[in-house]
Amino acid sequence: MIIVMSHGATEKQIENVIDKVHSYGLRTHPIFGVQKTVIGIVGDDKTIVVENMRGMPGIEQIIPILQPFKFAGREAHPDDTVIEIGGVRIGGEKVVVMAGPCAVESREQLLDIAGKVRASGASVLRGGAYKPRTSPYSFQGLGEEALKYLAEARDTTGLLIITEVTDPRNVELVSGYADIMQVGARNMQNFVLLTEVGKSGHPVMLKRGPSSTMTDLLLAAEYMIIEGNSDIILCERGITTFETYTRNTLDLSAVPAIKHESHLPVLVDPSHATGKSSLVEPMSLAAIAAGSDGVIVEVHPNPEQALCDGPQSLTLEQFDVMMTKLRAIAPIVGRSL
Amino acid sequence: MIIVMSHGATEKQIENVIDKVHSYGLRTHPIFGVQKTVIGIVGDDKTIVVENMRGMPGIEQIIPILQPFKFAGREAHPDDTVIEIGGVRIGGEKVVVMAGPCAVESREQLLDIAGKVRASGASVLRGGAYKPRTSPYSFQGLGEEALKYLAEARDTTGLLIITEVTDPRNVELVSGYADIMQVGARNMQNFVLLTEVGKSGHPVMLKRGPSSTMTDLLLAAEYMIIEGNSDIILCERGITTFETYTRNTLDLSAVPAIKHESHLPVLVDPSHATGKSSLVEPMSLAAIAAGSDGVIVEVHPNPEQALCDGPQSLTLEQFDVMMTKLRAIAPIVGRSL
Amino acid sequence: MIIVMSHGATEKQIENVIDKVHSYGLRTHPIFGVQKTVIGIVGDDKTIVVENMRGMPGIEQIIPILQPFKFAGREAHPDDTVIEIGGVRIGGEKVVVMAGPCAVESREQLLDIAGKVRASGASVLRGGAYKPRTSPYSFQGLGEEALKYLAEARDTTGLLIITEVTDPRNVELVSGYADIMQVGARNMQNFVLLTEVGKSGHPVMLKRGPSSTMTDLLLAAEYMIIEGNSDIILCERGITTFETYTRNTLDLSAVPAIKHESHLPVLVDPSHATGKSSLVEPMSLAAIAAGSDGVIVEVHPNPEQALCDGPQSLTLEQFDVMMTKLRAIAPIVGRSL
Amino acid sequence: MIIVMSHGATEKQIENVIDKVHSYGLRTHPIFGVQKTVIGIVGDDKTIVVENMRGMPGIEQIIPILQPFKFAGREAHPDDTVIEIGGVRIGGEKVVVMAGPCAVESREQLLDIAGKVRASGASVLRGGAYKPRTSPYSFQGLGEEALKYLAEARDTTGLLIITEVTDPRNVELVSGYADIMQVGARNMQNFVLLTEVGKSGHPVMLKRGPSSTMTDLLLAAEYMIIEGNSDIILCERGITTFETYTRNTLDLSAVPAIKHESHLPVLVDPSHATGKSSLVEPMSLAAIAAGSDGVIVEVHPNPEQALCDGPQSLTLEQFDVMMTKLRAIAPIVGRSL
Repeated sequence: MIIVMSHGATEKQIENVIDKVHSYGLRTHPIFGVQKTVIGIVGDDKTIVVENMRGMPGIEQIIPILQPFKFAGREAHPDDTVIEIGGVRIGGEKVVVMAGPCAVESREQLLDIAGKVRASGASVLRGGAYKPRTSPYSFQGLGEEALKYLAEARDTTGLLIITEVTDPRNVELVSGYADIMQVGARNMQNFVLLTEVGKSGHPVMLKRGPSSTMTDLLLAAEYMIIEGNSDIILCERGITTFETYTRNTLDLSAVPAIKHESHLPVLVDPSHATGKSSLVEPMSLAAIAAGSDGVIVEVHPNPEQALCDGPQSLTLEQFDVMMTKLRAIAPIVGRSL
Repeated sequence: MIIVMSHGATEKQIENVIDKVHSYGLRTHPIFGVQKTVIGIVGDDKTIVVENMRGMPGIEQIIPILQPFKFAGREAHPDDTVIEIGGVRIGGEKVVVMAGPCAVESREQLLDIAGKVRASGASVLRGGAYKPRTSPYSFQGLGEEALKYLAEARDTTGLLIITEVTDPRNVELVSGYADIMQVGARNMQNFVLLTEVGKSGHPVMLKRGPSSTMTDLLLAAEYMIIEGNSDIILCERGITTFETYTRNTLDLSAVPAIKHESHLPVLVDPSHATGKSSLVEPMSLAAIAAGSDGVIVEVHPNPEQALCDGPQSLTLEQFDVMMTKLRAIAPIVGRSL
Repeated sequence: MIIVMSHGATEKQIENVIDKVHSYGLRTHPIFGVQKTVIGIVGDDKTIVVENMRGMPGIEQIIPILQPFKFAGREAHPDDTVIEIGGVRIGGEKVVVMAGPCAVESREQLLDIAGKVRASGASVLRGGAYKPRTSPYSFQGLGEEALKYLAEARDTTGLLIITEVTDPRNVELVSGYADIMQVGARNMQNFVLLTEVGKSGHPVMLKRGPSSTMTDLLLAAEYMIIEGNSDIILCERGITTFETYTRNTLDLSAVPAIKHESHLPVLVDPSHATGKSSLVEPMSLAAIAAGSDGVIVEVHPNPEQALCDGPQSLTLEQFDVMMTKLRAIAPIVGRSL
Repeated sequence: MIIVMSHGATEKQIENVIDKVHSYGLRTHPIFGVQKTVIGIVGDDKTIVVENMRGMPGIEQIIPILQPFKFAGREAHPDDTVIEIGGVRIGGEKVVVMAGPCAVESREQLLDIAGKVRASGASVLRGGAYKPRTSPYSFQGLGEEALKYLAEARDTTGLLIITEVTDPRNVELVSGYADIMQVGARNMQNFVLLTEVGKSGHPVMLKRGPSSTMTDLLLAAEYMIIEGNSDIILCERGITTFETYTRNTLDLSAVPAIKHESHLPVLVDPSHATGKSSLVEPMSLAAIAAGSDGVIVEVHPNPEQALCDGPQSLTLEQFDVMMTKLRAIAPIVGRSL
């Protein structure tokens, strides 16, 4: 941690800052420059207490040097984390494709989709039971009924199932059905929910919040890790920017960037990122080319009748075509599908 | 609602779209332009079903005409909402100042601050009991203990108290102590929490999410209104942008804009918006000048020793000076303090 | 064009708006909804005059239906534009790789790099002669001397050369040397420069401005097309967002999106977008997978000694490795290199 | 300047970095932490060469400590700059109001507006002669003819005149007519134009670019200062964000922030920032409350017939009302109008 004193800081102010740092049991290394004095601080994790010294007279800025996350970072855990669930390995050599409808709409619809995405090569079935929607007038999901259909689809097809949990009171219920729980983008900093999911120890996919930096995402993962849950898949799903052509802006360079900083697997959701079905295939191919551990996409037999996210859903035929291309592109980057 | 057909849409595609709209019991008004056909749709609230037609062949875009919120908007409720709690009117002629520490740190600290901000003219005491923090290693609040200190401070000073609720399971507990509950920015789209707070019927301040538009904010308020809670204060507290000098970017023009679209009171939080104590006074003055119904600011007797948000906290002396200026500026815009 | 009247608009106001539109020689199609009246306008390009009616009493919003650009869009020109320069076709079946140093630093450096990127398979050599730099204290380029070295490198290697033009007074000079002129991101809305480059009729690469939407980019291209220059290559090079890990945020989904809306070739610049050499290879691969017509990357024999943009430059060895992978990925999306 | 070595940096890498820094004639102060080594660098302005060392093996990041601008900052020039032009002092005790049409449309229109804004208390007349427009199909201004009308309006009313210069070839022409030249937001990083305006030594108002940080703005001012022009007024006019309700997002906290970092006067343009005439008065009041040295606003006798920016223009009556309120608010913050 580095404290930069302002241009006009007095000797007394510098002394006060140094004394304060010492009072926390930390050592200081002041560097007296021509224009400014800089105080390097050496110690252990307690440097976080220094953050709140920012208000002290004469301090211009405080710059952290160490990453704010410990367990989510590569420094503490250099090797890639591979999460194995029911024979599917996420974060390993094979890229993983998760597919299914935005929301579970009916038993028949789900079983139909499940069989077809399985045949095309998906290994995980997605489907929303509890839907967080911007408008209270939009379809909110079928709840536990949907969870039962998902479980049936798993039993029938052998696919793993992933579904979103939105309520800390439902973590036990949802983890009883789902192989992987999802914490959605709008709940990425719902720390109450993160803590419950962390305690559950159940595999989870954590989606990046629309205005969250990579560091915020890794800190959110850290919340779950310190509760004892290391089976965390990260998911880039677009960030909020000024561009309105797409629903969000897919920050694809976050994939190699996160994999550089963290050992956790990273997936990409081009459906929510772009909001346009015509962009899902090119961005899925790009995701794998950029080093993603897989993609999660929305498919629907009749997107124009979907109760949720129709415009961004692939048809089952489009999904099948895309899978063929993904299978071809994976080996170029040393992976398979 | 307007459906714009693409340049090359066929007659058959246009016909299909019209038929589909009719199947929802809505009427259509097609306009055949030189380059594109536009289909106007007239009906009632059911137009939301049209949203999901976006995937249909030949459709270029679907443009909603009505506001997506009903009860939060001025169209349904032209007069300003004034919320009266224990003699304090929020949204009326008087501007309201809420002040206090980021987090409640101790009984003594809180009672000391309460007495002083009261003397300076504040009418509501803020203080965090449950703190949502980006890092799991930061101070997370004293929990119910803090709620008890807040209640004591109310009893002693006559100030109303406001504190954040982060967990749907705590809504009853927190509303038992607090005069006003706060839903924080990171929970603005935590719909589970919104629903519980809505059901409680307890006065609430809803902070704008860092990547949420004004419309998103009003839809979040709508979630609570349809559960029966109309005592909602909105709060602008800065949005996420590329500028790093300030913690967030205070979107002050949102204040007159929201007041134009909605009848709900709007406050401004310059402390979280800017993250710098030196900017709190100028932006508080600006907020009142722009038509805000009040401000909520962080104060701390010793900001450099605060467990949370020290750098953005005013000292008690700075707060007192600011109050004098706010008192002078309010009459210029037809208000008082 | 659609005019939406506000909820409380009077009959007189609606009549005034209709009369005004008629005064421009345009036809109106009013639709009287339950809550709001919508006025469809049919006519030709003159609808742009309607834009300024927004101030009229009773008007809530004015929504354009047609794209604001004419010649840059696919509606006017459905087939892909392929630009052929000295045997290199840009926008055709082959993807094009442009490579070279940020700034031309010396004759020897440039000839060395040129020979090597040629050997690795690049077909265009980049190198800055006039450098727009955020700080006046940064290296500003060698000017015409650099142009001469570039010309010599072309003569020696057969590579095409591309270099930036920043001054309308230099368009003739630069186009006398360069095969392709570049209009940089910060000049994307320098309309004086666009007009001069448009008049020159010389092939140009137009980089997207950091806060410009896709539509803004196509309108900037339109400025040059209406001056008679259709040989325009577009380039996505990252937009400004809140994420600070990368220099900008590469908006890769803009590639398929622009190719959907426009017939012009689109390249990607992962060097400026990410600012980190470690992200250049994955994002180049992703760009080709997403349908880009090529990439432009910075290479330098000794990035840590570069006078400009060292941290984002590939070494010649890294570039050669990347080219091998690009050659493998192109056929997956029906292209070659 | 601080170099942070990565967690796994070898002793040899640290040594190489230190040697390299020494080769530039700079001194180093290494601090060996438990996890990372940090190298403080002391020297003079030459530290900018260190920027390009970022590519060296083992370096994680390089953090500048000194402000990148020298002459635009308060450290070099602690006192406020006051620019005096023809009896008007900008940056002094009196706040300054600039008003006029977006574009000069005719002699009569301009003289009419000039007389009226003068009567209401404005001291500078704005009016565009050369208009940078996003679309080539929008009105581009009357050019030199408009400059002549502006000069006549000055002679008639005694108002100063301000108008935009967009072409480096026109700097002499425009400065021959205008009391203050304006460099528009889209040209803030048109360094060729900045250099010419800098050389002219003519008073200039520099508008902040829509994706430019405060630091970028001050660096753009620095370009002009080092050419010899210190008569620079800065102008906050909104930044690009995700919010679409307003044209841009007015970053009002930039006003006290810039005034803290720089000695140059700062104005606010609420017309371009918000794009909505109804928001101009509240944001003008807020600007003065926040410490702005003045405002520049668009007025038009008939906004719905304006050739440019009608929706954001005040009528002359609205302007007069606003001036009365500005006159009342200025004394609250120790100013007058």
